[in-house]
Amino acid sequence: MNLDPAPVAKKPLRQALAEFAEERGWQTFHTPKNLAMALSVEVAEILEIFQWSDGVESQTLAPDKQQALAEEIGDVMIYLTMLASRFNVDPEAAAWAKMALNEKKYPAHQVFGKSLKYNEY
Amino acid sequence: MNLDPAPVAKKPLRQALAEFAEERGWQTFHTPKNLAMALSVEVAEILEIFQWSDGVESQTLAPDKQQALAEEIGDVMIYLTMLASRFNVDPEAAAWAKMALNEKKYPAHQVFGKSLKYNEY
Amino acid sequence: MNLDPAPVAKKPLRQALAEFAEERGWQTFHTPKNLAMALSVEVAEILEIFQWSDGVESQTLAPDKQQALAEEIGDVMIYLTMLASRFNVDPEAAAWAKMALNEKKYPAHQVFGKSLKYNEY
Amino acid sequence: MNLDPAPVAKKPLRQALAEFAEERGWQTFHTPKNLAMALSVEVAEILEIFQWSDGVESQTLAPDKQQALAEEIGDVMIYLTMLASRFNVDPEAAAWAKMALNEKKYPAHQVFGKSLKYNEY
Repeated sequence: MNLDPAPVAKKPLRQALAEFAEERGWQTFHTPKNLAMALSVEVAEILEIFQWSDGVESQTLAPDKQQALAEEIGDVMIYLTMLASRFNVDPEAAAWAKMALNEKKYPAHQVFGKSLKYNEY
Repeated sequence: MNLDPAPVAKKPLRQALAEFAEERGWQTFHTPKNLAMALSVEVAEILEIFQWSDGVESQTLAPDKQQALAEEIGDVMIYLTMLASRFNVDPEAAAWAKMALNEKKYPAHQVFGKSLKYNEY
Repeated sequence: MNLDPAPVAKKPLRQALAEFAEERGWQTFHTPKNLAMALSVEVAEILEIFQWSDGVESQTLAPDKQQALAEEIGDVMIYLTMLASRFNVDPEAAAWAKMALNEKKYPAHQVFGKSLKYNEY
Repeated sequence: MNLDPAPVAKKPLRQALAEFAEERGWQTFHTPKNLAMALSVEVAEILEIFQWSDGVESQTLAPDKQQALAEEIGDVMIYLTMLASRFNVDPEAAAWAKMALNEKKYPAHQVFGKSLKYNEY
């Protein structure tokens, strides 16, 4: 599937999304509050795919479910990018920044093999 | 803030995340099912930020809330990338692919200014 | 609609739900973890109804949406009851107990007209 | 814990909740849209409890987690009741009504032991 990074795009994703919304007169619907709700609704469609499987089963999906999952991931990324761009945040840069924080919060030797929250250690 | 794309990274985000989890012995927790749940929990922390504001208010956040939002966006992107990589999906590529589908599903002249779902037109 | 309390039932809701699942061999799917996910998926279907409306608009729903909402509320209540009963909790009793805690956490004279969390006062 | 039905209350839960909000001037925050978001945020706190456990582990909770779960169930029931009452729906009555629909949608002999959605049979 499409694990390779996005092909070199003529424009950033956030700009393409803004133009898409503008061409459809959808900007008024796209308040940050509504985008957050839409993000949540799309994530639930991912949850639904894994709802009744157990952890091991969830590692293998039938082809049609894989396709559905890829589309839902696309939807989540779309709303995440739209919401983030309203506050001048790039999702991937935010992920790297959070990773740097997590390196400090969860020292490998201290948390090895445990799933507790950092404030429970 | 960090609207600029991520600085050229020495490795892909998904690889850095896999190494981070491996160093902490967290792979066993990271079934697709659990990653989907974690994604959902992080999105709810974004929802919480906008919970009581109305649409207009949601466009302006106090600096501490902006910082919190950027961190939550980072968390969402982290879990989305981890989940997606299990199925060889790149979130940004998936977003572009979904955009292409949406162009067909929602022709601009037909949906202008309406928020209905495509199957309600 | 059905604002009136449930008609006197021959059995408690949680018992009817347990029998329904047993007759269909669904108990193995109904781990607390899976029930929590199902609960979350159903709540997202409620979110979806209010996704693009603003606060004022959300107070009026077309009849078909009202019917859809009532069904989703039923679904949420079903999964909430099933999950709660695994831990000997009755949802309505838990709500009354939480109300008593909230009375102390949010003294009326202190929080009047404010939506902050209790630890932000 | 509190599996027993709520003790006979002097007033319905929905009325107690309405008075609680009114005494705090919170009605303006409590649009159906906002209540739906609050419901979703509380459900995510339940999800978080079961996030990293597997299905079997999720059946046993440490006492502090059990207490936390009971409180979150209370919160979910509170927001569900508030939202439902805006549309004259009683959650428990809605659950019984949905059960009746489910009896038809999922005939026991047809779905035994399967977790598919009804439209996949």
